[in-house]
Amino acid sequence: MNMMESTFPEKHTRIYLDWAATAIPCTSQDPVSNLEFFANPSSIHREGRLAKEALESARLRCAAVLGVPPEKLYFTSGGTESNALVLHSVILKKGKNCLLYSDTEHPSVRENCLLLKKLGLPTGIIGVEKDGRISEENFDSALKKKSDTRFAMLMGVNNETGSINDLASLVSLARSREAERRLPIHIHADLVQALGKVPIDLSKLDSAAFSAHKLGGPRGIGLLYLKKPLESLYAGGGQERGQRPGTENTSGALTLALLLEKRARPEIMEEEAKKAAVRFSYLIGELRKIKRCSLIPEDRKNDDPRFSPWILQLRFRDVPGAVMVRALDDSGIAVSTGSACSSTSNERPVLSAMGLSESERLEGFRISQGWTTEKADFDTLLSGIEKALSCL
Amino acid sequence: MNMMESTFPEKHTRIYLDWAATAIPCTSQDPVSNLEFFANPSSIHREGRLAKEALESARLRCAAVLGVPPEKLYFTSGGTESNALVLHSVILKKGKNCLLYSDTEHPSVRENCLLLKKLGLPTGIIGVEKDGRISEENFDSALKKKSDTRFAMLMGVNNETGSINDLASLVSLARSREAERRLPIHIHADLVQALGKVPIDLSKLDSAAFSAHKLGGPRGIGLLYLKKPLESLYAGGGQERGQRPGTENTSGALTLALLLEKRARPEIMEEEAKKAAVRFSYLIGELRKIKRCSLIPEDRKNDDPRFSPWILQLRFRDVPGAVMVRALDDSGIAVSTGSACSSTSNERPVLSAMGLSESERLEGFRISQGWTTEKADFDTLLSGIEKALSCL
Repeated sequence: MNMMESTFPEKHTRIYLDWAATAIPCTSQDPVSNLEFFANPSSIHREGRLAKEALESARLRCAAVLGVPPEKLYFTSGGTESNALVLHSVILKKGKNCLLYSDTEHPSVRENCLLLKKLGLPTGIIGVEKDGRISEENFDSALKKKSDTRFAMLMGVNNETGSINDLASLVSLARSREAERRLPIHIHADLVQALGKVPIDLSKLDSAAFSAHKLGGPRGIGLLYLKKPLESLYAGGGQERGQRPGTENTSGALTLALLLEKRARPEIMEEEAKKAAVRFSYLIGELRKIKRCSLIPEDRKNDDPRFSPWILQLRFRDVPGAVMVRALDDSGIAVSTGSACSSTSNERPVLSAMGLSESERLEGFRISQGWTTEKADFDTLLSGIEKALSCL
Repeated sequence: MNMMESTFPEKHTRIYLDWAATAIPCTSQDPVSNLEFFANPSSIHREGRLAKEALESARLRCAAVLGVPPEKLYFTSGGTESNALVLHSVILKKGKNCLLYSDTEHPSVRENCLLLKKLGLPTGIIGVEKDGRISEENFDSALKKKSDTRFAMLMGVNNETGSINDLASLVSLARSREAERRLPIHIHADLVQALGKVPIDLSKLDSAAFSAHKLGGPRGIGLLYLKKPLESLYAGGGQERGQRPGTENTSGALTLALLLEKRARPEIMEEEAKKAAVRFSYLIGELRKIKRCSLIPEDRKNDDPRFSPWILQLRFRDVPGAVMVRALDDSGIAVSTGSACSSTSNERPVLSAMGLSESERLEGFRISQGWTTEKADFDTLLSGIEKALSCL
C-alpha cells in the first residue's frame, strides 16, 4: 500500500482521545510562511541574519509566554532531548553526587537515570503517594537518605495518570535543605504534559523540558529552560550558546512560538483547562455509574485539583487495558494504555509506584483529551465502553 | 520589526551560494498531506498504526535509495545528532580503546571527539594531505601509532573545501589492519555533504550520518545508518529500536524519503553532479583569470575528482574572507566563510590541517552551489567579486 495515497475515510467519525501521546496538529500553523527564514541562522549573510532574527524573535515570544528571560530558553529537538541534555550533562560533573528521581517519571527521564546509575552515579528513588504525587514527606525522606543529593527530577504532570506534583512546595523544601547543607540541588522538571494544560512557574526551577508536538506542533522541536548554562555533553557547532548543537530549526521555533501564544498564555490556558475540567467531570460522573470501573487512583474526584483535567487513567475489572484499547479502537475511538513511549512493554512502572497490583496494572488505560474534544465525544466513548463490556 | 510580516523583496534578485550551510527548501515537499499520519507511531490504535506504517514506509524508501536493509536505518533529529549518537555510545564501551579522527571533521564530530578525550578516552589524529584528503599513508600511520584503535571517523565530503575522502580504499585498509590485530575498528562516516551530491557506498561502513535540510528538507530530521545496533547513551521510550528515543518525526521522515528519491538516487545524483561540475569548471576557469585569486588547495583543477563539484573554498590575496563575504552580501550574493557551524569563530581548523598559514586561513571563504544554481549566477558572482576587489 502506498501510504501517501491512502486516505483516512473515517477521519470525521473517529474520536481521538490520545492527546497525551500527541496532539492533533494545529492547522493554523503556517510552515510555508516560515520558508522565508530558510537560511542557516549561523550564516553571516543577509539570509542568515534574517533567519537568526526570526529564531530570536521566536525565542522572545516563547519567553514572554513562559515569563522568563529569553536567554534562558534553548531550542531542542523535543521533550526527550531536553530531558536528556540535562541528565547527560551530569556525566561531565566531577564527584559522585547523588541524583534523585521517581519511578513515575517519563521514560526519557527514568531510563536516562538508570543509565547514569549504570555509569556509576549514585541515585536514589523518591517515593510517591497512592495518587502518584510526590509528597513533601516523600521528597524529604529521599533527601535525608542521600545527603549528597545534587540533582532531583520532579515532573510536573504525569503522562499516564495526570497527577500534578506541587512543585512550589517541593522546590521550597529542596531550597531549605540546600541552605542547611550549603550544597546546591539542581531541580529539573519535565513539563511536557504541563505546558498549555496547567499553570507553570519556572522561577524556582533550575531547568525544565517542553515539547511542541504535545501542543499541536510538529515533531523535531522542543524547548529547554535553563536557569544557568550547563556544561553540555552534546558538543558541536556551538549553536544555542553551546547547549544544543545542530542547525537551528527556525521554522519549528516559529511554530512553537505561535502555539505557545495560542495555547500556553496563562489566561487562555486557564480558560481551556476549566472547559476540560467540566468535560472530564461529566465523563468521570458517568464512568462512576459503571460497576466494573475504577479510576486510578480510586479516590480521584470529578474535578480534582491533584490531577490534570486532560489525562485520566482508569480500569475495568477483568478487562486488560490493551483489550479495552483494541475494543474501543474497533468502535472508532483512539485511547491508549500507558505512555506511547512504552506501549510495547507490559511493565507499568508508574502504576507500580502507586501501589497497584499486577492485575490492576494490566487493566489500566488512559483517556486524554484536547482542545477540540467535545462532550459528545465522551458520550460516544461511554457507548463504546458499554459495548465493549457487554462482549468482554 | 515583526519578522512574520517582513518580506523578502529582493528574493528574486538575490543569489544564494551557501547550499553547504543549508539548501533552499524544496517546495515540492508536501507536509500538509503528512498530517494524516499525525498520531504517535508508538500508539496501538488505528491512528498510531497508520503513523507507524507511514514511518516504516519512509524507512523502506530511504533504504531503497541508499541500497541498505531498512532495519539498519534510524531516523534522528539531524546530522549533528546522528554523529553524536555514535560518538556518545563510545562512553558506554568498556576499556580504553582509541578513537581516531581528523581535524578536518565537522564540528559535530570533532568537538565530540575532543569531549571524549576530556572524559579520558585515548584519541589520535589522522593527518590530511594538502588537498584536505586523508591518504592511505596518513590513515595507516595513525593506525600504527595507535594499535588499540577501535573507532575511526572518516568524513565523506568536507563541508568547507569539498574534498572527498576515498572511503573505499581507507576502509579496506582498516579492514586489513583489523584482520591482523583481530580487533574490530568501527568506521563512522559523516556523509552529510555527500548525500545527493557524490556517490555513496554504505556497504563497508559501520555507521554513517545524514541530514535532511542539506537536501532541501526541514530541520529536525536526519538519518543514522548502523550496520549493527549500538548501545545508545540516549535512553528513553525505546523508539527507533532503542537507538534514538523521542516521538518519531513521521512527517519529517516522509519528506526525507521524498527528497532522497528526488535527489539521491544514483542516476539522478550523477546527472546533477555532472551539471554542477560543468558550472564549477566555468566558474573556476574564470576565477583563475583573477590575479589575486587562489583556490584552496591551489592545485584544485577545473573538474577535479578529488573534490565535490558543489563546494569550493578560495581566497583573494589581502582580503579577509569575512570582508569578501560581507562585500558580496552587499551585492546581493550569499556566500560563507567556513562552516556555518563555526562562523562566529576565527579558527579554521580544516584549513590549518591542510597547512595554510594564519593569513591564508583568514582569507578563505566558501562558494557552495545547489540544484537550482545557474551559470548566470556565477556571472553575477564574478561581477560581485570584481566590484569588491576594486574597492578593497
